[in-house]
Amino acid sequence: MFDYIVVGAGIVGLATAYHLKRLDPNASILVVDKESGPGAGDTGRSAAAFRVFFTGRLNMLLAGSSVEFYRHVQEDEGYDLGMMWVGYLFLLDEDGLRRVEDGLREAERMGLPFRRLDPRVVEERMGLRARVTGLEEAELIDAGDVVDAVLVEKAGIMDPERLVRYYYEKLQSMGVEFAFDTKVEGFIVEPRKPLGIEGEPFAWQEARVAGVRVAGGKELRARRKVIAALGAWSPLLLDEIGVDSYSRPKKRQVFVIRADGERARVLRAQGLNRYGIAPMTILPKGVYMRPEPGEGTFWVGVSDYLGRPYKLEEPPHPEEDFYTLSVLPVLSLYFPQFQDAYPQAAWAGHYDISFDSQPIVYEPYDSDLIVAAGTSGSGIMKADAIGRVAASLALGLDEAELYGGESIPVKWLGIEGRLLEEEKLVI
Amino acid sequence: MFDYIVVGAGIVGLATAYHLKRLDPNASILVVDKESGPGAGDTGRSAAAFRVFFTGRLNMLLAGSSVEFYRHVQEDEGYDLGMMWVGYLFLLDEDGLRRVEDGLREAERMGLPFRRLDPRVVEERMGLRARVTGLEEAELIDAGDVVDAVLVEKAGIMDPERLVRYYYEKLQSMGVEFAFDTKVEGFIVEPRKPLGIEGEPFAWQEARVAGVRVAGGKELRARRKVIAALGAWSPLLLDEIGVDSYSRPKKRQVFVIRADGERARVLRAQGLNRYGIAPMTILPKGVYMRPEPGEGTFWVGVSDYLGRPYKLEEPPHPEEDFYTLSVLPVLSLYFPQFQDAYPQAAWAGHYDISFDSQPIVYEPYDSDLIVAAGTSGSGIMKADAIGRVAASLALGLDEAELYGGESIPVKWLGIEGRLLEEEKLVI
Repeated sequence: MFDYIVVGAGIVGLATAYHLKRLDPNASILVVDKESGPGAGDTGRSAAAFRVFFTGRLNMLLAGSSVEFYRHVQEDEGYDLGMMWVGYLFLLDEDGLRRVEDGLREAERMGLPFRRLDPRVVEERMGLRARVTGLEEAELIDAGDVVDAVLVEKAGIMDPERLVRYYYEKLQSMGVEFAFDTKVEGFIVEPRKPLGIEGEPFAWQEARVAGVRVAGGKELRARRKVIAALGAWSPLLLDEIGVDSYSRPKKRQVFVIRADGERARVLRAQGLNRYGIAPMTILPKGVYMRPEPGEGTFWVGVSDYLGRPYKLEEPPHPEEDFYTLSVLPVLSLYFPQFQDAYPQAAWAGHYDISFDSQPIVYEPYDSDLIVAAGTSGSGIMKADAIGRVAASLALGLDEAELYGGESIPVKWLGIEGRLLEEEKLVI
Repeated sequence: MFDYIVVGAGIVGLATAYHLKRLDPNASILVVDKESGPGAGDTGRSAAAFRVFFTGRLNMLLAGSSVEFYRHVQEDEGYDLGMMWVGYLFLLDEDGLRRVEDGLREAERMGLPFRRLDPRVVEERMGLRARVTGLEEAELIDAGDVVDAVLVEKAGIMDPERLVRYYYEKLQSMGVEFAFDTKVEGFIVEPRKPLGIEGEPFAWQEARVAGVRVAGGKELRARRKVIAALGAWSPLLLDEIGVDSYSRPKKRQVFVIRADGERARVLRAQGLNRYGIAPMTILPKGVYMRPEPGEGTFWVGVSDYLGRPYKLEEPPHPEEDFYTLSVLPVLSLYFPQFQDAYPQAAWAGHYDISFDSQPIVYEPYDSDLIVAAGTSGSGIMKADAIGRVAASLALGLDEAELYGGESIPVKWLGIEGRLLEEEKLVI
């Protein structure tokens, strides 16, 4: 019997366990995961870029405080998280410009720093082909010239596996227990006042989630709360007990392209940040190109929506055709250096997408179950804050103190009392 | 090729088709359903009670205007919808009273009419056993005395099959076409500018929902919009194309108890409404007892949450044990007339529950697909308004005019711009 059981040793589960233990040092905590180590699910499959550049208050608070915490870990604690502030570079066609205009104005008003670059500067420094009008390939995919470029400096890339390792080592040193290779098959739902009648709980009984059933029929029980930090697996396990994570899994793919030949110059773009490497670059139509300087590669991909099923794939497979038909035509149009580039590796993971793209943290039906889900593709960059909110909720607190000292109501991530905002910098 | 295809001939699909045709009389509209007639899914399985007694503005607007429309149909058009304004009677224990106190104060402030009855009056007129303290059965289920009773007069029961018939006859006379026994197997997602390349649409293409594929491989196509009015079937078909209905199905059960012997007196309770029959009565712990005076029966049931899976059951089966163990202990405690009552019939259906219990009406990704889902158990009483919002959205309007003349922004039922309110009269 533990005080708390955290199901899922992904980044959200780890951050939650860490802040639970920090806030309640005497509590006994068990983290359970079906994999053989921490961060072995979608956490490690992330493209792992971060930005602190949003117009929505919640986005700014969650990402802002988490990224500051990671900076603190890397710079003050000296624990290398692979953070590099390479920046985000948005390359905008007419259409893209129209879509972000409002957001940029708002960002300006809020005093968020960004720079506008003449596309010719990006041509010079990165080898962008900004002018594509008239090219057959551009007409085929209905693509326009890059007419503007926005460089956001408070943004970059990091290594989620090191962040996982950081929390994991902390948790071990604090005495939090782990059960790996332990597949949770279901949650135990029991009446608070059991009568010992078969079929409990009945509709008139107050019920709670008392723990989990794991493979082999064993039960693991929690005195206080069970935290479901299941990411893309949330619906699979929570639907069964009638709890909605308000989020659904969607496959995302990353393709690795060696930065050799002409692409080496793209990777080592000068003058855009202090590292002399390419920023995380977002092309028209959402195709991104993320530098991985340590390996001398780019990670490229695109998020697809309509037509891409909401579905959990185990394990998720990258699709060669997706690279060839959905990524490459855009990538090689604006960066002809990629014309003959073929992925040397690829992987796939899931986004766990909520209805407003904000995390979901709530306790359904006062059930002692805390759901922490819906990271929607920004889980790494918000994980520390999500963990603080989930831990605070588990402790019965109304507010969660984020890194840096600002507090937010935990209900902002719940359903009732949720802070529903429009984010103008969805790019 | 049709202008509009409505998938689902349940009450939401019918109301949507009706208002589409009303607002755009020249449009060609096809309604498709897998069943052999309209309203054959969960619409006909509803407990079919209505109330116009909410503190939330959206609830009041949607239910208020729809119920007024139904009243107009029945009273002015002379089309019998089986509406009887028998009222809702909430029997409150200490706990229930605490939960609704705020809501009742708010209702008073808003000028919503209701009456508080001394439980002794309900004892006299309906045969309620208000005082249960000390009874073994009460202790077993942890139930307390009924300490207050609230009678809401702007509420009652109706016959959803007649409402279905009303819309269906109108639609037929207006020239809307129907394809019954036609199972939709999937939605057709296509690029707006097709290139004829296998695997389209690709991520860089603008795509739309062009129609549906039905059993036998046939395609039905819509020039303008496809409306998915799928209720509990929404995730099944929409997940496949990566569209979230933001709603999930949960089974609900109705048990029919003959009102003979002592129960006849309960059914024919005098002095609580103009009909001299029992109101729709909600007991502590959520058990309800709905009069069906035409058949001389009660429909009884209870909504269960934690532990009841989110799952589509085809067809959904009522569970004898659920009546015996979850409904009867509460029902027979407060109404001993039901002590030996056994259901003479029973059925089950689904609620299609959204995150805030309000309907979901939106067009994902400008895809020409309109999702109308998430009725959350109040679909019948809000159907006319939902249909107006969905039709307005399909026509590209920003506002929907509800019955009675008030207009609301269609985005209030969408995701961005959604009107998220707390309803204080969740009972």
